[in-house]
Amino acid sequence: MRLVVALGGNALSPAGGTGSVEEMRSSLSVAASALAALVTDGHSLVLTHGNGPQVGRLLLQQERAAADVPPMPMDVCGALSQGQLGYLVAQALDNALPRPTRVLSLLTQVVVDGRSAAFRRPSKPVGPSYERPEAQAIAQASGHVFAIQPDGRWRRVVASPRPLRIVEDEPLRALVDSGHVVVAAGGGGVPVVEYRGQLRGVEAVIDKDRTAALLATSVGADLLLVLTEAAQVQIGYGTAAARGLSTMTVAEALGWLRAGEFPEGSMGPKVEACVSFVRAGGAAAIGALSDAAAILSGKAGTRITP
Amino acid sequence: MRLVVALGGNALSPAGGTGSVEEMRSSLSVAASALAALVTDGHSLVLTHGNGPQVGRLLLQQERAAADVPPMPMDVCGALSQGQLGYLVAQALDNALPRPTRVLSLLTQVVVDGRSAAFRRPSKPVGPSYERPEAQAIAQASGHVFAIQPDGRWRRVVASPRPLRIVEDEPLRALVDSGHVVVAAGGGGVPVVEYRGQLRGVEAVIDKDRTAALLATSVGADLLLVLTEAAQVQIGYGTAAARGLSTMTVAEALGWLRAGEFPEGSMGPKVEACVSFVRAGGAAAIGALSDAAAILSGKAGTRITP
Repeated sequence: MRLVVALGGNALSPAGGTGSVEEMRSSLSVAASALAALVTDGHSLVLTHGNGPQVGRLLLQQERAAADVPPMPMDVCGALSQGQLGYLVAQALDNALPRPTRVLSLLTQVVVDGRSAAFRRPSKPVGPSYERPEAQAIAQASGHVFAIQPDGRWRRVVASPRPLRIVEDEPLRALVDSGHVVVAAGGGGVPVVEYRGQLRGVEAVIDKDRTAALLATSVGADLLLVLTEAAQVQIGYGTAAARGLSTMTVAEALGWLRAGEFPEGSMGPKVEACVSFVRAGGAAAIGALSDAAAILSGKAGTRITP
Repeated sequence: MRLVVALGGNALSPAGGTGSVEEMRSSLSVAASALAALVTDGHSLVLTHGNGPQVGRLLLQQERAAADVPPMPMDVCGALSQGQLGYLVAQALDNALPRPTRVLSLLTQVVVDGRSAAFRRPSKPVGPSYERPEAQAIAQASGHVFAIQPDGRWRRVVASPRPLRIVEDEPLRALVDSGHVVVAAGGGGVPVVEYRGQLRGVEAVIDKDRTAALLATSVGADLLLVLTEAAQVQIGYGTAAARGLSTMTVAEALGWLRAGEFPEGSMGPKVEACVSFVRAGGAAAIGALSDAAAILSGKAGTRITP
């Protein structure tokens, strides 16, 4: 089978960690073992991943040196993180695989609609959180938009438009066809708009799960596998009546999404991505990284069915 | 013809500039026009580029935020810069080319010898320069090696080992074979060592011109084109007797290299790279970015002959 696997942030570095390269390498080596099993079982693999904590750290570094080095816009921050994570992820997976398989990282741009309402209502928090006066000072100096967060602190918010098209989709598919494991569209892809055939980066971040669904369609995947920390999608999450689901139809998923069963910042986009790929004729599942192989054989995780 | 083009740092952002993305986009759009002419003339193109100023700025940003965000080692800094520059270079060139040509950026690792003497005598200055007390404080906190520079200030120095092999050489060649313009091995490539088939990043930077010569061999290039600011290689550079060379044999080049005609930080590695590729059976030339097409037809630049 051809698989598109979306890796959550925790597979890349532990939540609450320092973000050191040693931490990242250690998390990635665990992830790589689980993923290598899929490749040695004969599956073809395209890997994508989040970049939230890594971009957050880049933004903090840029902020601290802003008097001497001009901070980069969000598209370039996305590209920086694709370089960093693409390298670390590819190397970790490569080291877990037998030769001659080679893991490649392809810088990936994703086209979004510049006239999307997402750009009028920036909603996705990025980077560090600040107390109000500091946020105001940075907003004034940079022109960035800040919004108050549930914890009462302020964070920069940017647009999170829907991914429409992967710029490099054709060569990406050719690389997969020729037997390579490819890391692509990290962090949801570098967001660009297209006007008269010209590409231009925009101040946005694209949801990585949405891009994973698009990637699955682009490379003709048989299965979209969204890996996270949870063993299954749950209904009644956090209540006494919580129950894990081994399967869920598209209709059920949409109903529960509407009912707010899946939080927007975590399970929501994963379920949406699976629904969208299943509707496009594919198969999709959500589950724990450590269960990757078991999810494929239907023994773990949550399968989304038509 | 299949060309490997090495772009100097000034093609990416002006010397003495601020390093803002606007500056980079503006320099790159000029470079892209010159390079697009080669592609529309029917040549196949693999592009590589320097990253010194960009990595310098990343190191400064990391230094300023070091109390909150662990700085990354040099291999990861190289990968970060490949993401940043690979994206900006590919997008600029893509926008200068007619469809369906698509420019791809491939994250590229380059194997070096971990037992090379280069690691015992780190010599390549990276990042900002400091007064002695500040350099000492950073050295103590980080374990980095600093060395005094000709201007009396101190800079971190790292190993600059020779590139031995491009990890992604086979898929890179396949992408070029299938008609793609590829940006690869930016900044000389991410330096890694290989031990029993396992890759591991190292604290080093690889000279981008040396890697360009290796890249030219790896993809079976007909011509290695090293583009810089100078219109020709000069003998007696900076003296009244200075003269430009339209051709130079390998033997002449080696003699002048030994005589110190080509400074180590600038023309030296470019001439060495060309000599190495010509000795391997290829053709090579050095010249100004704006003359790229004229260099191909022998009307500009300096051709290195066997």
